[in-house]
Amino acid sequence: MSKAILISNDDGINSEGLHKLYETLKPLGEVVIVAPDRDQSAVSHSLSLSRPLRIDKVADNIYTVDGTPTDCVNLAINGILKDVKLDLLVSGINKGENLGDDITYSGTVSAAMEGNLLGVPSIAISLCGRDTFNFDAASYFALLIAKHVLNHELPDDTILNVNIPPLTRDEIKGIKVTRQGKRVYGEPMVEKVDPRGKKYYWIGGFELGYVDIDHSDIAAINEGYDFKIPFLQKYYYQTLSEAQKG
Amino acid sequence: MSKAILISNDDGINSEGLHKLYETLKPLGEVVIVAPDRDQSAVSHSLSLSRPLRIDKVADNIYTVDGTPTDCVNLAINGILKDVKLDLLVSGINKGENLGDDITYSGTVSAAMEGNLLGVPSIAISLCGRDTFNFDAASYFALLIAKHVLNHELPDDTILNVNIPPLTRDEIKGIKVTRQGKRVYGEPMVEKVDPRGKKYYWIGGFELGYVDIDHSDIAAINEGYDFKIPFLQKYYYQTLSEAQKG
Repeated sequence: MSKAILISNDDGINSEGLHKLYETLKPLGEVVIVAPDRDQSAVSHSLSLSRPLRIDKVADNIYTVDGTPTDCVNLAINGILKDVKLDLLVSGINKGENLGDDITYSGTVSAAMEGNLLGVPSIAISLCGRDTFNFDAASYFALLIAKHVLNHELPDDTILNVNIPPLTRDEIKGIKVTRQGKRVYGEPMVEKVDPRGKKYYWIGGFELGYVDIDHSDIAAINEGYDFKIPFLQKYYYQTLSEAQKG
Repeated sequence: MSKAILISNDDGINSEGLHKLYETLKPLGEVVIVAPDRDQSAVSHSLSLSRPLRIDKVADNIYTVDGTPTDCVNLAINGILKDVKLDLLVSGINKGENLGDDITYSGTVSAAMEGNLLGVPSIAISLCGRDTFNFDAASYFALLIAKHVLNHELPDDTILNVNIPPLTRDEIKGIKVTRQGKRVYGEPMVEKVDPRGKKYYWIGGFELGYVDIDHSDIAAINEGYDFKIPFLQKYYYQTLSEAQKG
């Protein structure tokens, strides 16, 4: 049966991960993209309340909004698609992981959170890595998990925050439900002087440190698993073949 | 003993609530303001990673940042005050409540979340209301609760999200620990045409609807209590006099 699926992200309309996701989910039904018109990484669950927003139609079923991922999902569900009964929202595929405390900054995860608040089953998909991204395994798991959610109910107040390790499909051991890990933040501020002699500051230079917590999302990624669903232990698969049986 | 206290907010440096909070906490020790240079409401836990940030000194112990509340707290703890052992961060006093799902959008609460992630005991203070705000009761409770936190430890990974009802100090019954309530979102998008004939959209027009959940933050505010500390039942006071004994 054809499904109605909304896609958004926080890397913006021109992100490779968004287009891979669109191609991946298109066979499932009517897929509509409503995405930020530019990169909106780390904007968290920001909502633009104090200014008007513009919606631009790029092509059939593809729209941009001059706002945050949360704005996009809000305007999609309450505006562009208000007469559509959406079966699923998928946010991503994000370039970079969303693990541990960093989830609270994530625009990708917040788009899924907004979908859930507005009554649509919602998933966030992130591909771990820094500079180079191979979307093959991520696309494969996005489709697998999207089908799973379409065929099974998600509990109330629950979104899926899926992280895919930077491995090939065969190297990924299975799908694992985890709990949120904890980052160790270090050396996060850089102070420099601009060409006109004025100081500026740049947040960043995060060390990739994590507290060692059993069964955390971070531990799972390091072990070659993907898939994070807090409090949803029935979705736990030890092997890929178990996951594929769904 | 003199304490080192950081203040931030999301309404920006010129907010009345920020100045009330500063005056209220000043007797406790060294109080430093690092706040956004303009209104940053509903920016959630946004962190500016893709651009440099500027810090301006407005007066002794008062700084602005051209960024989000989270940027402010991050630059304060890792930059401006990096050699100071902070005893407390207080975010607010916000004009408007932060209850239920709306907490996820809140810049006020996110500033406290950032403080906690960076190891500083952190509180968010919000005054319920829409247009007119009387900060007397909010200032009183901000001081009471700040002293309480300075004298008692907060558990790990715990912030206080304090909401004060729009009542006088005497009308407030006591301090109540609650759990997060749930909003009912309705009619959130307005479509209009600008002076040049182009459509625009405005998120808003939220109805003040809530799901009826026992012991929720929303229920408590409606009953005339303040103070929300999820999972922290030992901080529960039935009456104001119990709270004052601390």
